[in-house]
Amino acid sequence: MSNLYLVGIGPGSGKYLTKEAEDVVNSSEIVIGSKRALKLFPDMKAEKIELNAQNMGEMLKLAVSKAADNNKVALLSTGDPGFSGLLKPIQKIKGNLDLEVVPGISSIQLCASKLQIPWDEANIITMHGKGFSSSLLPLLSNGRPTIILPNTTINETVNYLMEKGIEPNRAVAVCENLSYENEKVVKAKLEELLAEKFGYMCVLVVY
Amino acid sequence: MSNLYLVGIGPGSGKYLTKEAEDVVNSSEIVIGSKRALKLFPDMKAEKIELNAQNMGEMLKLAVSKAADNNKVALLSTGDPGFSGLLKPIQKIKGNLDLEVVPGISSIQLCASKLQIPWDEANIITMHGKGFSSSLLPLLSNGRPTIILPNTTINETVNYLMEKGIEPNRAVAVCENLSYENEKVVKAKLEELLAEKFGYMCVLVVY
Ligand SMILES: C[S@@+](CC[C@H](N)C(=O)[O-])C[C@H]1O[C@@H](n2cnc3c(N)ncnc32)[C@H](O)[C@@H]1O
Ligand SMILES: C[S@@+](CC[C@H](N)C(=O)[O-])C[C@H]1O[C@@H](n2cnc3c(N)ncnc32)[C@H](O)[C@@H]1O
Repeated sequence: MSNLYLVGIGPGSGKYLTKEAEDVVNSSEIVIGSKRALKLFPDMKAEKIELNAQNMGEMLKLAVSKAADNNKVALLSTGDPGFSGLLKPIQKIKGNLDLEVVPGISSIQLCASKLQIPWDEANIITMHGKGFSSSLLPLLSNGRPTIILPNTTINETVNYLMEKGIEPNRAVAVCENLSYENEKVVKAKLEELLAEKFGYMCVLVVY
Repeated sequence: MSNLYLVGIGPGSGKYLTKEAEDVVNSSEIVIGSKRALKLFPDMKAEKIELNAQNMGEMLKLAVSKAADNNKVALLSTGDPGFSGLLKPIQKIKGNLDLEVVPGISSIQLCASKLQIPWDEANIITMHGKGFSSSLLPLLSNGRPTIILPNTTINETVNYLMEKGIEPNRAVAVCENLSYENEKVVKAKLEELLAEKFGYMCVLVVY
């Protein structure tokens, strides 16, 4: 039996929570997650600890040490914890503590659903937290659509792609704020994206 | 507004259903799915139509024509409909009928969760319904774990891989009947899998 649960909560809205995620969270003693993530579980009785970009490293350590002290701890991760999520950072620090991972709907999947892209035949790549990587470019010419979690703004990503020789009129799509009230799906040509304003919560597709 | 919903129901157990999947199914007039899939929604009031391997093509056409006749139709797909699921076959026959896709937890994801593989750094490939394809082999030497939906039994797949020169002592894992009572996770060397008996519901990982 594990005391530490890494729980995927889906792309944001409670609509994409699984029962397993709810059950694990509602039976935990300590739940650590972003403000947004914690709000998805109004029924939980656990001690809530807020995690943000600043205290991330500290909170992951806290999760591990509280679980090692025999508390049932749920650590909330957006989307699926195994896709560009908290799985890797937790693995680095958890030592030999048992861990259980609860999958969640990734933003990649909701993007593929919205755009109706069979993603067993798509390239899927995250640049999040990595910077531009040359491994992206060959994918863009293998004939499949490429679903990308960008590292930075859509604007910077578009400029990078055009610098690297991707055609300005290449068909692309952006899925912003998926599952939220202000969700936006834009289909366009690559260069047309420069005229739009997007926030940080975006998935980019290059067809 | 769409009348046709393609609904991902996750790997099998009701634990991985999302609220969105439940809401769509419970508000549909006609629900088409396998016996197993239909059982996941005890509260639905819809007309239930059972789909199986034999009547699949016919039932997909029925889903489209019932939706075209202005019924709200939910078509249930295991895992995520966009990963080796019903999305592609439905796209082929739906004509210009509107479609909405509800993502689900794929067997690939539950496998990655169980084995704690960050799948943004894994190869993911389906051979399901395709036969052995030479596109698999180069993946097995790119340094990443490869998560495979096999086309046939684990036994035949192992024999194929060994014939193609994959080392008999290569580290592998099989996740069988994920989320069901008889779930089994086996970590082994490639050739050791030949001594085990597996059913058809398996995900294979080659490390
Ligand atoms: C650290 S990654 C986490 C990804 C997450 N594990 C997943 O599976 O979706 C964060 C990035 O995911 C994407 N993302 C997460 N939620 C999103 C949403 N609701 N809409 C669009 N993009 C989202 C954005 O690109 C964001 O910068
Ligand atoms: C037609 S594919 C559908 C895949 C599905 N769309 C998904 O995302 O998981 C069927 C194959 O998925 C795998 N599969 C589906 N459910 C599974 C489960 N519960 N456990 C193990 N493998 C499963 C098996 O390899 C099975 O042959």
